[in-house]
Amino acid sequence: MSVERVRVTVSSADRAARAALSAVTEPGDERIALRVRDAGAEATWQAVLGGDDALDRSRTSRRRAEHVDGGELLERAEQLGIQYLCPSEPGWPAPLDDMAVTLDYGDRVPPPLGLWLYGDGDLAALAESAVAVVGSRACSRYGARVASDLATDLALAGRTVVSGAAYGIDAAAHRGALGVGGETIAVLACGVDVPYPRTHAQLLERIAADGLIVSEVPPGSRPLRAWFLARNRIIAALSAGTVVVEAAPRSGALSTATWTQKLSRETLVVPGPITSDLSAGCHTLVRNGAGTLVTGVADVLEAIGRLGDHMPPDPERETRPIDDLLPVHLMVRERMYADALETVAGLARRTGLPARTVATSLRELAAVGWVTREDGGWRLGSTISPLETRT
Amino acid sequence: MSVERVRVTVSSADRAARAALSAVTEPGDERIALRVRDAGAEATWQAVLGGDDALDRSRTSRRRAEHVDGGELLERAEQLGIQYLCPSEPGWPAPLDDMAVTLDYGDRVPPPLGLWLYGDGDLAALAESAVAVVGSRACSRYGARVASDLATDLALAGRTVVSGAAYGIDAAAHRGALGVGGETIAVLACGVDVPYPRTHAQLLERIAADGLIVSEVPPGSRPLRAWFLARNRIIAALSAGTVVVEAAPRSGALSTATWTQKLSRETLVVPGPITSDLSAGCHTLVRNGAGTLVTGVADVLEAIGRLGDHMPPDPERETRPIDDLLPVHLMVRERMYADALETVAGLARRTGLPARTVATSLRELAAVGWVTREDGGWRLGSTISPLETRT
Repeated sequence: MSVERVRVTVSSADRAARAALSAVTEPGDERIALRVRDAGAEATWQAVLGGDDALDRSRTSRRRAEHVDGGELLERAEQLGIQYLCPSEPGWPAPLDDMAVTLDYGDRVPPPLGLWLYGDGDLAALAESAVAVVGSRACSRYGARVASDLATDLALAGRTVVSGAAYGIDAAAHRGALGVGGETIAVLACGVDVPYPRTHAQLLERIAADGLIVSEVPPGSRPLRAWFLARNRIIAALSAGTVVVEAAPRSGALSTATWTQKLSRETLVVPGPITSDLSAGCHTLVRNGAGTLVTGVADVLEAIGRLGDHMPPDPERETRPIDDLLPVHLMVRERMYADALETVAGLARRTGLPARTVATSLRELAAVGWVTREDGGWRLGSTISPLETRT
Repeated sequence: MSVERVRVTVSSADRAARAALSAVTEPGDERIALRVRDAGAEATWQAVLGGDDALDRSRTSRRRAEHVDGGELLERAEQLGIQYLCPSEPGWPAPLDDMAVTLDYGDRVPPPLGLWLYGDGDLAALAESAVAVVGSRACSRYGARVASDLATDLALAGRTVVSGAAYGIDAAAHRGALGVGGETIAVLACGVDVPYPRTHAQLLERIAADGLIVSEVPPGSRPLRAWFLARNRIIAALSAGTVVVEAAPRSGALSTATWTQKLSRETLVVPGPITSDLSAGCHTLVRNGAGTLVTGVADVLEAIGRLGDHMPPDPERETRPIDDLLPVHLMVRERMYADALETVAGLARRTGLPARTVATSLRELAAVGWVTREDGGWRLGSTISPLETRT
C-alpha cells in the first residue's frame, strides 16, 4: 500500500486526528467510536482538546491531549517504518468493518480508530485467510504442543495464524506458523515497536519479518492491563474463527471468545483432560454452546469453511433447491424484520433457537437468495418465496 | 419380589416360553421381539420349534430349541438364586418399556424377552436413579481415574452406576461405586453366573452382593461377540443417561451411545486430550451433536435432571406461563401429528432442528401441558393453545 493511495480516500487531517486520538483515548472506547462515526475524527479530537466531559474517561485525556500532535506521531512512525492504516483506506481489511456494524446492531464491538502496522505483510491479504489461535499464558505442555501443531497445520493449509504474542499458547502458535515459513500476525496491547513481553523480542522480530505486528495504540506505548482485553477484539475481528486451545475459567483468552461471538465468528475450542483446570474454560464454552469442539486442523477448516465469510462462493450452494429448506429456515426468516440488518445473536434471542442453528439457517437461506449477508449482518433478500406468495 | 406376585400377571407358560426363547435366539433379535409382541411368547416358541423360516436366524435355532425346556431353565436358575424377570411383572423397571415403544416409533431397540437377575438389589428401585458409565476396555490411566471418580461421585449422590463389567472403564466405574458403598448394576453379555472376564470374578461377586448382575441370556451362556453390542442397549435403557468416558473411534462404547440416542436418553461425554486416540470417539460424539460434554458429576446430574424421565415433577415448571414459549416451541408443536406418538429423532428430521433443541422444546411444551410424555414418546396434549384458537 503506497502513501499516495491512502491519501486518495482519507484526508491527512483525518489521519492525524485518528492518530492523536489513539494516543489519548482508551482502546475500544465505545463513546469515542460513536463520536468519530457521527462527527468525524477531527471534530472528536477538537472535543477532546476542548475538554468535552462526555468523552473524558480518564480525566487526564485533555491534559495529555495538549501535548499530542497527530501529524508528528505519524511522521515519527513513518521514520520507524511503521504504517498507520485507517478504516476505508486501501489495504484496510473488509472483515474489520464488522466492528463498525455492531455499533448499530447487536453487541457493540467498537472499531479501532486505525491500526499501527509494523512488518512486511499486507494486512488485507493476510486477514483473508486468518485464523486466531489463543489461550492461557501459563499453559500446559499439552496446550503448547497442540497450539504449535495446530498453527503449523494451519500455516501449511495456507492460513495466517493470528495471536497476541503473549507467553504460553500465543507464542507456541506464532512459532508453529513461523516454523514452516507460514504467515502470522501478532496483535499487541502495546506499541508495535515495544517488545512485550521482553523475552519475546526475537519472536516479534521474526513475526515482523514474515508477517505483521498490529496495534491500535501508537508506537512507544507501554501496555496497560485493560488494553489486553480490548486488543482481543482485534484478534477476533481479523480472523474467520478463533481457536481457544487452553483457558482456565477466568482466563483472558475467554474474552477473545466473547468478542468472536459478538462478531458472529466461529469460536473453536480444543478440549483437554477434565482433570486440568487449564481446559476448564474451554469445556465451559462447549457446554454453554458458545464454542465448537475441534480436535485438529480439519475440524477448524471445516468450521470456518461453513462460516463462508472469507471463503469464495461455493458453486454447489447456488443450485440448492428451495424444496430442501426446512421449517427451521422458514422460522428464522419469518422473524427477520424487513428493514433491519439482523444479527445471529438477535435472531437467536427472538426465535429461541441456538445461535449455531440460526447461523446455519441464515447461510442456507443465503444460498437460495432468501437472505443476504451484508457488513457482518443479515438482511432479507429479494427472492420471491413461498412465504411471500402465501401472505 | 415374590414368585407369587409374579404369577399374578404373567403365566408360567409365558415365562417358560420367554426363558426358552432367550436360550435359542440372539439377544436383541428384532423379528423375535415383534413376533412375541404380536403373537405372544408361547406361539413364538412354537414357531421356532416348528422351524418357522421367518424367525430362523442362525439356522441352528430349531435344532437347539428341541433340546431346550423353558420350565427346566427357570427351575435350575432358581436353584442358583437367579431370578427371571419378564416385562410387566412386578419389579420390571418402567424405563425398560421405552424399548417396546421403539418397535412402533423411531429407531427400533428390541426389548429383551426378560432379564436374568443375580444379586440382592431390586432392579426397579436401582433403575430409578441409574446412570451408566461406559468406555474402552484398553483405557488410559486418565480414563480409569475419571471413570472411578465419577462413579464414586454418582454413588455419593445416591445414583446407581450401570456398566458392563468389562476391563478398563467399566471395571473402574463399578469399583468407584462399590468403594463408597454405592449401588451398581453390571449388565453382562453372558449368563449372570458366568465370570467374564475371568479375572473379574471377585468384582462380579461384590456387584452381586451390593447391587445386581443382569443379562438377557440364560445362566451358563458364554458370551458371543455380537452379544456385547446387543447388551449395550440394556445398559442404555436402564439408565437416565450414559456417560462415555473414553472411546476410540470404533469403540464398542459408542454403540451404547447410539442406543442411548435411539431411546431419547442423554448421552454424556467426557472430553480428553485431542492427542489421545482414546478420546477421539468421545470428541466425535460432541462434534456431531450426539452427546453433551460433561466435566464432572454436577454436569451429569444437571443433564439427566433436565431429561426429567426418572425425576419427580418439578413444581416450578407447572406454573411456567405460556407467554414464555418461543417460536421454536410453536414450530415443534406444529410439526407433530395429531394422532401419533412422536420421537425426538423423528421431529428433529421433520423440523431440521437439532435433536437437543427438539427435546428441550418438548419438555418445555410438556410443562405447560401442550404435549405429554408417554411411554418413551411425545403426544400432543389437550390444552387449548393460541394455535388452536388461530386455526
